[in-house]
Amino acid sequence: MSGEAAEITVGAYLCKRLHEFGVRGVHGYAADGYARIKGMSALITTFGVGELSALAAVAGSYSEHVPVVHIVGVPNTASQKQQLLLHHTLGNGDFRVFSDMSKSISETFCTLNEAADYVKEIDRVLRTCWVRARPVYIALPTNTVFQKVDGSRLKKPIPFELDLNPEDVEQEVVDQILDLMYKSQNTVILADACSIRHRVLDELHQLVMKTNLPTFVTPMGKGAVNETLGSFGGVYVGDVSRKDVKETVEGADLVLFVGGLVTDFNSGGFTFHIPRNKTVRYAEFPGITMKYVMQRLVNQIDMSKIKVTPTTIIDNILPMRERQSMTQDITHAWMWPTLGQWLREKDVVITETGTAIFGLLETRFPADVTAISQVLWGSIGYSVGALQGAALAVHEQKVERRVILFVGEGSLQLSAQEISTIIRHGLTPIIFVLNNDGYSSERKIHGAEAKYNDIHEWKYTKLLDLFNANPEKSKTYQVRTKTEMEKLLMNKSFATGKYIELVEVFMPKQDAPRALEVTAQNTARLNKVLNV
Amino acid sequence: MSGEAAEITVGAYLCKRLHEFGVRGVHGYAADGYARIKGMSALITTFGVGELSALAAVAGSYSEHVPVVHIVGVPNTASQKQQLLLHHTLGNGDFRVFSDMSKSISETFCTLNEAADYVKEIDRVLRTCWVRARPVYIALPTNTVFQKVDGSRLKKPIPFELDLNPEDVEQEVVDQILDLMYKSQNTVILADACSIRHRVLDELHQLVMKTNLPTFVTPMGKGAVNETLGSFGGVYVGDVSRKDVKETVEGADLVLFVGGLVTDFNSGGFTFHIPRNKTVRYAEFPGITMKYVMQRLVNQIDMSKIKVTPTTIIDNILPMRERQSMTQDITHAWMWPTLGQWLREKDVVITETGTAIFGLLETRFPADVTAISQVLWGSIGYSVGALQGAALAVHEQKVERRVILFVGEGSLQLSAQEISTIIRHGLTPIIFVLNNDGYSSERKIHGAEAKYNDIHEWKYTKLLDLFNANPEKSKTYQVRTKTEMEKLLMNKSFATGKYIELVEVFMPKQDAPRALEVTAQNTARLNKVLNV
Repeated sequence: MSGEAAEITVGAYLCKRLHEFGVRGVHGYAADGYARIKGMSALITTFGVGELSALAAVAGSYSEHVPVVHIVGVPNTASQKQQLLLHHTLGNGDFRVFSDMSKSISETFCTLNEAADYVKEIDRVLRTCWVRARPVYIALPTNTVFQKVDGSRLKKPIPFELDLNPEDVEQEVVDQILDLMYKSQNTVILADACSIRHRVLDELHQLVMKTNLPTFVTPMGKGAVNETLGSFGGVYVGDVSRKDVKETVEGADLVLFVGGLVTDFNSGGFTFHIPRNKTVRYAEFPGITMKYVMQRLVNQIDMSKIKVTPTTIIDNILPMRERQSMTQDITHAWMWPTLGQWLREKDVVITETGTAIFGLLETRFPADVTAISQVLWGSIGYSVGALQGAALAVHEQKVERRVILFVGEGSLQLSAQEISTIIRHGLTPIIFVLNNDGYSSERKIHGAEAKYNDIHEWKYTKLLDLFNANPEKSKTYQVRTKTEMEKLLMNKSFATGKYIELVEVFMPKQDAPRALEVTAQNTARLNKVLNV
Repeated sequence: MSGEAAEITVGAYLCKRLHEFGVRGVHGYAADGYARIKGMSALITTFGVGELSALAAVAGSYSEHVPVVHIVGVPNTASQKQQLLLHHTLGNGDFRVFSDMSKSISETFCTLNEAADYVKEIDRVLRTCWVRARPVYIALPTNTVFQKVDGSRLKKPIPFELDLNPEDVEQEVVDQILDLMYKSQNTVILADACSIRHRVLDELHQLVMKTNLPTFVTPMGKGAVNETLGSFGGVYVGDVSRKDVKETVEGADLVLFVGGLVTDFNSGGFTFHIPRNKTVRYAEFPGITMKYVMQRLVNQIDMSKIKVTPTTIIDNILPMRERQSMTQDITHAWMWPTLGQWLREKDVVITETGTAIFGLLETRFPADVTAISQVLWGSIGYSVGALQGAALAVHEQKVERRVILFVGEGSLQLSAQEISTIIRHGLTPIIFVLNNDGYSSERKIHGAEAKYNDIHEWKYTKLLDLFNANPEKSKTYQVRTKTEMEKLLMNKSFATGKYIELVEVFMPKQDAPRALEVTAQNTARLNKVLNV
């Protein structure tokens, strides 16, 4: 470029900036899963029809703190000014109605029309997306895409770093926390969703490793902490927790609650019994960046002043005797601990918000497992799109990681065609279709035998062939008994994750994970109280 | 009920009122197609995730003037007041954010909370939906559903009738129109979308039959007029029209433009050459109900004062010689006129907004054919959901009508699982999958050979089996040549529409209907002008 300001189109500028954030492809609706692996993602839709079809997905990313750049290709600005009755409009000349709908689910937005300072706006919006870990919206008129801008600004990357806290305030916060920790006889760490989304897992691990304090996760925090550590105690979900976990967490006189997001399903139906005066939540220090507080805390902590009460190690391996006494039916109580032993380091485990997400609480992860689910937003079929995005992201990382989906047959039906995209890109996830004859998680909440919880059965094992998977590079299985499942899990060729594989797992209709049963009961009780 | 006021729940009241409007089932997203057959439909979704997933579909109904009642099951009002962080929320305690998004695509809306007068609100909203032929939104909290209301109001049905015009104003409008018609040497009728949606087809036909004036339709008006009448002249699409049609319509000195909706694709890219001072448009009489004006017009018209120039009859039958000279490839130019001869009275013909909708302009319909398409909103995959809704509606009508879909393979991939619902309900449409190796209509607009217009191929003829269709009550076919297509169309068992049937039609990749080719060129020209 020999020193001169290099001209570049707005479209190319935007792509180069996205590239800085690790974005290597754009998506339809699989952006959320991709962002959870790569750190950020971009979604391109067309004006009106496309963007509205994506609203539920983007709202999910907003709800769950996932940084997705939503780029919408809009008609050229001259058409807009003339209020032409173009296709993909409401036929009323209103060209702002759709972007207005996105405002409440976007952290910020911009319209790259003539009035905009294109490069500054792009930089501002992308950094906001990254720093705030939430969706942003960019309206890109067709006539702007090829406008030329000064590309020399690209020499300086957009800063990834969060703004620093004022040092005296940060020190005061750390002093307060240390004071509480030194006074406590019995402190536990509880890691939740925002520790993952706001990228403090390194700091969290340093804290866990340095202090050896008993550490728990919430359902949305699953995967935040290395579960093979001796100090790991399991999943805390209020009254839905296992008895020993509940006693330990609620018996603590200080809970360091990192990245908390106390939603209904994430808290056992609002049954967390950790009093505010015994809890440190970072949300209580508004305007303070959690990441830097944790770094300072780890550096300054004096271990000689900390009392550590070792935790009971949660064992999720079923005793052999118990296993033999049960039927051959593949029950949730049996399957999830069994699957936990089959998982490997670095696996990406995606679970649909149905029986799967509750069952997953009964697995113990190897180190460095990434869990993807949508406990708060809970959009049916989410996990299949997320699988496609995550599998593509892992493929780009060029590391040995399996990508594994657990989805009910009902949820799969909503977005089964994402498997077509997976095959098109040559991706190789392992898909467990939990066929339990209907919407089992819904049955637990309402209408156990109701017709509306029934599902029209598909021949699920024919999906890969329908989508034209190479028969030599794909495999399908059906398992109906514990023995068949165990045999499959021990099959080394199955376990590699080199091919796309689909397993249809037949499970009893009314069986559900313990956590789902208890949550459904708590929800029913809560509804009753609220309706009085 | 013996004279007393009968108590009834709010939920049951709502259902009974919907029943008055012919609604016999509720939908996911197939409501639009159902409403176009039955006159109105209802869609039930869940709060947040469900309703946002339906926004693009509801916006389509708004854009295209289709009366759909969108009922959203929302959390109970106590939870909302406490701003609980429930699943399916943004996690910010804002329970109004989703209904706010629907406001701009709803003709009216109501929230049935404690403050609402349940029955009055339901009646008001349903009547508005019917009268204005556009979607309405009802938020129904879970605790309201079983509230008791006075059911005696049900004895008086909600009035279907539109409000009457002031008689003197209506007479003045009719006098103005008659005056223009009596002066004109050469009048034509042009029927468009809103004549169908605002239910004036009876009046339109009376006008056509009484006057025998040359009558044309726009693409969105296709199906509004009996095309077997001698006075029917074909489809007018501005510069995209066939030469003889264009000359006749644009040569008229008066155009009665009934139910006009001048959008880009409906007007050949804004190339209607019918000057305003030579056109009667009902939209020019604001606040006046078109239906009553037309009734009065038909009653008062004095045929002795009307000059009628007979139209050229548009012949869409290809001369045998021409047919023989062409290749065996199934081209659009050959297929659509051929299909026109295969159609029957009362058929419901659904076309995706792709090559199919443009091709359909080259068919001539038998009497009483209903055409369903989405020319203005143009949401990809729409037609497959519409097929499900329309097929269910026809099934409920218990009359002998075939329901026939023409959809490109790319559009089908968006919503293929609607075919599962069709099979579940035992419905029997005929589905033509136009496999032309990619997004052909997009290729004509941008990127003729671009990778982004390619599609990952599926084995489409395996879809019915995947969805568990009874092999004895379903059939699939593949046709690759004109001869195979002709043979299939002559097959009496195929033509009955007694089973669900799927035909994969292989067509040349770059072939397109003439109307699409010309529209794409006009659009390109318009873009060029606007970008200067």
